[in-house]
Amino acid sequence: MISVQDLIRKKRDGQVLSREEIEFLIGGISSGEISDYQISAWAMAVYFQGMDERETRDLAVAMANSGDVVDLSSIQGITVDKHSTGGVGDKTTLAVIPLVAAAGIPVAKMSGRGLGHTGGTIDKFESIPGMKVEKNFTDFIAQVNVVKAAVISQTGNLVPADKRLYAIRDVTATVDSIPLIASSIMSKKLASGAEGIVLDVKVGSGAFMKNRQQALQLAEIMVSIGKGAGRQVVAILTDMSQPLGFNIGNSLEVIEAVDLLAGDGPTDLLEISLELAAHMMVLGKKFDQVAEARNYAAELLTSGKALDKFMEMITAQGGIIKLNKADRGLKMAAIQQPVQSAISGYVNQLDAYQVGHTAMSLGAGREQINDVIDHSVGIQLLKKRGDYVQAGETIAVIHASQEKHLSDAEAGIRAAYEIGPEKPEPTPLIIDIVT
Amino acid sequence: MISVQDLIRKKRDGQVLSREEIEFLIGGISSGEISDYQISAWAMAVYFQGMDERETRDLAVAMANSGDVVDLSSIQGITVDKHSTGGVGDKTTLAVIPLVAAAGIPVAKMSGRGLGHTGGTIDKFESIPGMKVEKNFTDFIAQVNVVKAAVISQTGNLVPADKRLYAIRDVTATVDSIPLIASSIMSKKLASGAEGIVLDVKVGSGAFMKNRQQALQLAEIMVSIGKGAGRQVVAILTDMSQPLGFNIGNSLEVIEAVDLLAGDGPTDLLEISLELAAHMMVLGKKFDQVAEARNYAAELLTSGKALDKFMEMITAQGGIIKLNKADRGLKMAAIQQPVQSAISGYVNQLDAYQVGHTAMSLGAGREQINDVIDHSVGIQLLKKRGDYVQAGETIAVIHASQEKHLSDAEAGIRAAYEIGPEKPEPTPLIIDIVT
Repeated sequence: MISVQDLIRKKRDGQVLSREEIEFLIGGISSGEISDYQISAWAMAVYFQGMDERETRDLAVAMANSGDVVDLSSIQGITVDKHSTGGVGDKTTLAVIPLVAAAGIPVAKMSGRGLGHTGGTIDKFESIPGMKVEKNFTDFIAQVNVVKAAVISQTGNLVPADKRLYAIRDVTATVDSIPLIASSIMSKKLASGAEGIVLDVKVGSGAFMKNRQQALQLAEIMVSIGKGAGRQVVAILTDMSQPLGFNIGNSLEVIEAVDLLAGDGPTDLLEISLELAAHMMVLGKKFDQVAEARNYAAELLTSGKALDKFMEMITAQGGIIKLNKADRGLKMAAIQQPVQSAISGYVNQLDAYQVGHTAMSLGAGREQINDVIDHSVGIQLLKKRGDYVQAGETIAVIHASQEKHLSDAEAGIRAAYEIGPEKPEPTPLIIDIVT
Repeated sequence: MISVQDLIRKKRDGQVLSREEIEFLIGGISSGEISDYQISAWAMAVYFQGMDERETRDLAVAMANSGDVVDLSSIQGITVDKHSTGGVGDKTTLAVIPLVAAAGIPVAKMSGRGLGHTGGTIDKFESIPGMKVEKNFTDFIAQVNVVKAAVISQTGNLVPADKRLYAIRDVTATVDSIPLIASSIMSKKLASGAEGIVLDVKVGSGAFMKNRQQALQLAEIMVSIGKGAGRQVVAILTDMSQPLGFNIGNSLEVIEAVDLLAGDGPTDLLEISLELAAHMMVLGKKFDQVAEARNYAAELLTSGKALDKFMEMITAQGGIIKLNKADRGLKMAAIQQPVQSAISGYVNQLDAYQVGHTAMSLGAGREQINDVIDHSVGIQLLKKRGDYVQAGETIAVIHASQEKHLSDAEAGIRAAYEIGPEKPEPTPLIIDIVT
């Protein structure tokens, strides 16, 4: 008979757990037979001793099977999904869904509300007036078959083992473990049912993974998990040393994504959105080559077809966005306060973590699961890494609902910018691709 | 404001916690404000990262202060106590209490029921017919002032933080951590109020500490904790590679201790009992030199004064022991089954852990806190390390209550003995002394 205590001791002593032992553990986590304090001790042992590739794969699969597994087989075509490990200003999902759907590939997006800097994908969609993200499963599938795209809030009993494990990890300093992060993410992707999965693994101060080496490790194990479970998976490492695009905050990010779809988006957001969409099109068997797919995606932007698809999708879900660039009809914050640079020079660093933290303090994100998000608040950056700034020039605009937040937010933004006399070398946006 | 999660992370990352942080942690463990799963994650982080001397001292003191602290000031003289880290066949406390008390030094012994191979000191005393170990505190102190010795079961709200922490460590593979073991033991000693403390740190297969280096580390930190709290402390490292004495089991151990006090005990038990008693007499300011104190202790045995003191103490607590060496009047097991050696040779090893485990399987110890101990069962060893054995000669006698235990017990005893052609080198009983 397997005892939990022995499994904790084995992991503590650096031994490898068998598939049977991992299934016993996840079974007990799901059923409640294993106590919280044994789960956290095991997670801390994993933090120190790690898990090998086989253990991590078995953990992800056991977690995926701990609850409902979504059946997308009634969708016509090869379903593809994307996942981002999370970054500041990351609104690529909003741009990528209509791009891929406009290419005829079905995107059945189940997403979550976020903990952290800004909201999750669902929070961003909810900043669109009228937009409904709670749909029953049949209507969700029907919309995907008609529109090729739909987005709903994760419901049902998906990966209950991960829910419990994550809640415990979150308060016991055991989040930062690559095998636990990888199996948590991939268990949800496996349970969500898509055949092709493109992973956007963020690297830099605003991401979980602070450097390329860690990110590569995470990407490789996630790809291994997905392939082991019979899915098509590609992981793309992208830069998160500075925020993506100019806008951070829920309404602000929707506006920027719509601008992008209307042919007027920031180049970094454009670059990453095209790359992700192209890989999804290849996994969806629309193209053999990524380069070909990228060109096609770019055409979908130029022709307005991607924007049309976005409007079609949000309209199908009750959402209303105006096609007037000056006013998209989203709720904006009462206060817009510019922040000026005290000195002249080049932006050498624009710390993503610091900007994200500032956005959260304005109310754009959740510190705790029950915090209520203010969709209207956020930060608009006017200068990014490599840009030249004159003393007195506005570098960013704070969008706030309350006066009392302004001074801390201003200090936060100033702390994020590092301005110096030398123009920094450009850094690559796409750092690596793992297949 | 201190957050538990930050303290877990700090320890996880190998940082040192301040006294204030440790007091916050122990406060939360005592009050219940800190959850079990955060306690176990922290304990696992300590397992991997350790604690420095200052942290361990602060932890022990904070735990000692988490509940009642016993006030022994109404006892005349300098109170001394001893503690053993636990070993197989360790009945020294039964011999040492009357030895020290007979020298006029007060011993107010509060002890616990044991988890493990055999019972704790209280379980052993309870195998004496009529012996009462539940006494109110006033009567306890009164007996110490009259008899110079009394023993009671630990009661009241002593070190509640350690009780909770230990219960969690016990099921999360976080027992084996030197700073946690040291602070657990010393918190109880500090809260128990004695001015002088002699620690018997066991080394070998039957002990927590498997080797000299670990044991020395544990001894040094425990002495540092005690001295830091203003107590006189000596730690003596003693051998636990084979059981101490010949008898293992509760009644059997009482019998052996009484034999020792009657001048007829095994040499290893005698050696360690005299050494411990001598150090206690020095801490009690009866002698300046340990050698002097040892001679005096040996005289107390020869003169029968130590045995008289033992009888006086147990009589004061209702206990009855016969002064007939052939029958001490304790409950003995129904079955006595000899185990013969299959081969001739010298006993090269007599594994203490294996013998202890076998005694527990007979019912002499507790696997779980609510298990009921059978005082009558145990093992009598007839041959120990270095002894010559003829093929067919009896090496041990199993004392069992149930036939069904015999075959496993016999196999356990055989596995404990390693018999070979060469006579092994003798090993020291007293390995080191830390002051």
